[in-house]
Amino acid sequence: MAHPASPLAPARWPILPGITGVEIATLRVGFYKHARNDLLCVRMPEGTSVAGAFTTSTTRSADVDWCRGVLAESGGKARALVVNAGNSNAFTGEAGLAKNRATVAEVVRLAGVQPAEVLLSATGVIGVPVKPNVLAERLPEAWQALRPAADSASWRSAAEAIMTTDTFPKAAGARAKLPGGTAGIVGIAKGSGMIAPNMATMLVYIFTDAAVAPEALRAMVSRAIGPTFNSITVDGDTSTSDTLLVFATGGSGANLITDASSREGRIFARSLAKVMRDLAHLVVRDGEGASKFITVNVTGAASAKAAKAVASSIANSPLVKTALAASDANWGRVVMAVGKSGQKVDRDKISVSFGGLPVAVNGQVARDYDEAKVTAHLKGDMVTLDVDLGVGRGKSVVWTCDLTHGYVSINGAYRT
Amino acid sequence: MAHPASPLAPARWPILPGITGVEIATLRVGFYKHARNDLLCVRMPEGTSVAGAFTTSTTRSADVDWCRGVLAESGGKARALVVNAGNSNAFTGEAGLAKNRATVAEVVRLAGVQPAEVLLSATGVIGVPVKPNVLAERLPEAWQALRPAADSASWRSAAEAIMTTDTFPKAAGARAKLPGGTAGIVGIAKGSGMIAPNMATMLVYIFTDAAVAPEALRAMVSRAIGPTFNSITVDGDTSTSDTLLVFATGGSGANLITDASSREGRIFARSLAKVMRDLAHLVVRDGEGASKFITVNVTGAASAKAAKAVASSIANSPLVKTALAASDANWGRVVMAVGKSGQKVDRDKISVSFGGLPVAVNGQVARDYDEAKVTAHLKGDMVTLDVDLGVGRGKSVVWTCDLTHGYVSINGAYRT
Repeated sequence: MAHPASPLAPARWPILPGITGVEIATLRVGFYKHARNDLLCVRMPEGTSVAGAFTTSTTRSADVDWCRGVLAESGGKARALVVNAGNSNAFTGEAGLAKNRATVAEVVRLAGVQPAEVLLSATGVIGVPVKPNVLAERLPEAWQALRPAADSASWRSAAEAIMTTDTFPKAAGARAKLPGGTAGIVGIAKGSGMIAPNMATMLVYIFTDAAVAPEALRAMVSRAIGPTFNSITVDGDTSTSDTLLVFATGGSGANLITDASSREGRIFARSLAKVMRDLAHLVVRDGEGASKFITVNVTGAASAKAAKAVASSIANSPLVKTALAASDANWGRVVMAVGKSGQKVDRDKISVSFGGLPVAVNGQVARDYDEAKVTAHLKGDMVTLDVDLGVGRGKSVVWTCDLTHGYVSINGAYRT
Repeated sequence: MAHPASPLAPARWPILPGITGVEIATLRVGFYKHARNDLLCVRMPEGTSVAGAFTTSTTRSADVDWCRGVLAESGGKARALVVNAGNSNAFTGEAGLAKNRATVAEVVRLAGVQPAEVLLSATGVIGVPVKPNVLAERLPEAWQALRPAADSASWRSAAEAIMTTDTFPKAAGARAKLPGGTAGIVGIAKGSGMIAPNMATMLVYIFTDAAVAPEALRAMVSRAIGPTFNSITVDGDTSTSDTLLVFATGGSGANLITDASSREGRIFARSLAKVMRDLAHLVVRDGEGASKFITVNVTGAASAKAAKAVASSIANSPLVKTALAASDANWGRVVMAVGKSGQKVDRDKISVSFGGLPVAVNGQVARDYDEAKVTAHLKGDMVTLDVDLGVGRGKSVVWTCDLTHGYVSINGAYRT
């Protein structure tokens, strides 16, 4: 790893359940000069459901285009996932498409599956040409190496193989007690820069041995993504490669969930959303150069949508983020960010608190404002910012990190 | 000055004409701990026209509200301008309004003018309460000190008195040969952070001794602001206090311009627009921490508006700006920023050049791409980025600067 682990990295790797039916292999293709695995292959049993969400970028990578296409074609069935780090296969033209064709053809040959059941992702530098066979020629070896995803260590190897500028591997797990059995859920993620609402440079793969019909899985993902991955931001930049895929193998023995709104559907969806939120927070904790995890709560907006727009404006403001990096209680920059959002506010009713301590009330500095107490809160690495706009009942939460010298160093040295 | 002058600062102060009828005084009120002037007073003769443009923020300062009100009330006539640095009078509630009332009342008493002929601006920290008489009690002394704006040195003192985090004072001048006489135009500006389209933390005052009817002046300002101040960005943040005011005293003896589209109207408007563009570029050259002046040309868009949205997306992208700070020809980040803009593009027709050197053509790396040559261009302090979207004939230019460690240092230390 080029950079030391984020100070916000969790102290230890979580204890994660095995997911029945999921097999994992990782190996080194050589996209990186230093020794590290950069290929992840996952095999899943017949009957596995899949649902996904992708970047809103209009300059999507070839891999994202592939996934969107096959998800529609297969009706939400999947058997294999191939992910490489080190080259995003974005802006690689015909060579990028050829790479995908060759990779899929080899998986089809090895696994005896349909092309539309093979999902692909790539992450890393944009615009560097790839050889068509770069992955395909290594797949036989990878298929030989496939092992059940049985424990925390196997998830760790998978999470490590997909890292780019990440300073620590990311995973989260949960269990859901369902009729017929208990299902496990494990997610791995990568992403640290180019993170903005609508997912950003994130790859997220979640595996469960619950049995969930594709339509129900799609409904759960689409409900959970707003308040999780679409509520985090590091720098407001959006990647060409963002991908979230959720796979359900059905290997747990729990009854099939066919309706997201059924009792068992809601139990499972709650656990899935928790895993998604935990992973989203991990991505923020690895925000490039991050030294503080910042929660922006906006209340009193005209609508939930307006609240989210204001919270995002605050969370994306370089002036707010640099002030917080310096533990500076510069609430003027917070109200500046409120103002530039263009959303309806009552300037003379706006209130701002840091760490629950009122700083501004009704558009002016709070009467009993004690900067020393607020600074003490800001010096910690978990910062909370509450802003009430005074016009309605809409509310929203956005998570972000501060903007430090580390961000500039990391992003000024990524390729060179 | 807390920070060394920007490496992009002009080598010398420009030679500026005097503007007949304009009188200037500067003095120290004491908003800053160190010795510096922080108050600018300007007196102008009867018959002076004024036109303005202001921040689009919904949390505007009391001073911006005041100016917007009186411009409507006076029909575009002005006699005095009072500007302080060090406290923006934004989020100061009733005390801020009382300060403005007291200031205007004292100008009315000293100058024998109408309240609606007095313009006010304030810049600096947001949300710090002000005493109502803080400016009024110093105005008699300022009025005593008023001297004709006769030479480059007097403009320099004015430009210095309105600086906040600026590392150098900013001015630009021009002359316009008009029927009846030659008019001078001089503008001063402050602004370095919180700069984004729609003006940002900028105060800009332009004075001319041309005679221009208020309506014609308004038309000229509104036409010129799009391709000048609304085409620059430093960090995407927008201030609560942005103000541009253009005053025309009529003291040159040139004939009165009543129509912006007349021959003399167009001659004058061209010179005015040049001063506005020069000032806008100076603001970018003082972008907080800037080490490179970056011109983003977007062509081939569906419309001029779409081109500007894409150019702004590139110019505001922290990942693009940190790459350019490091002289890294990371065009993948440029196409990422194109994609996140949401505008119509043809991914497989996008072309990107740095300094006129093709880097990507038709959505792929250029065949004869020579990274060494491109890096040599990027190592200079004037960087040009051309992006063609391949879908239409819309084009736009946006100017910005890079994102360096200096930005983080300056903004992590502004108040403390």
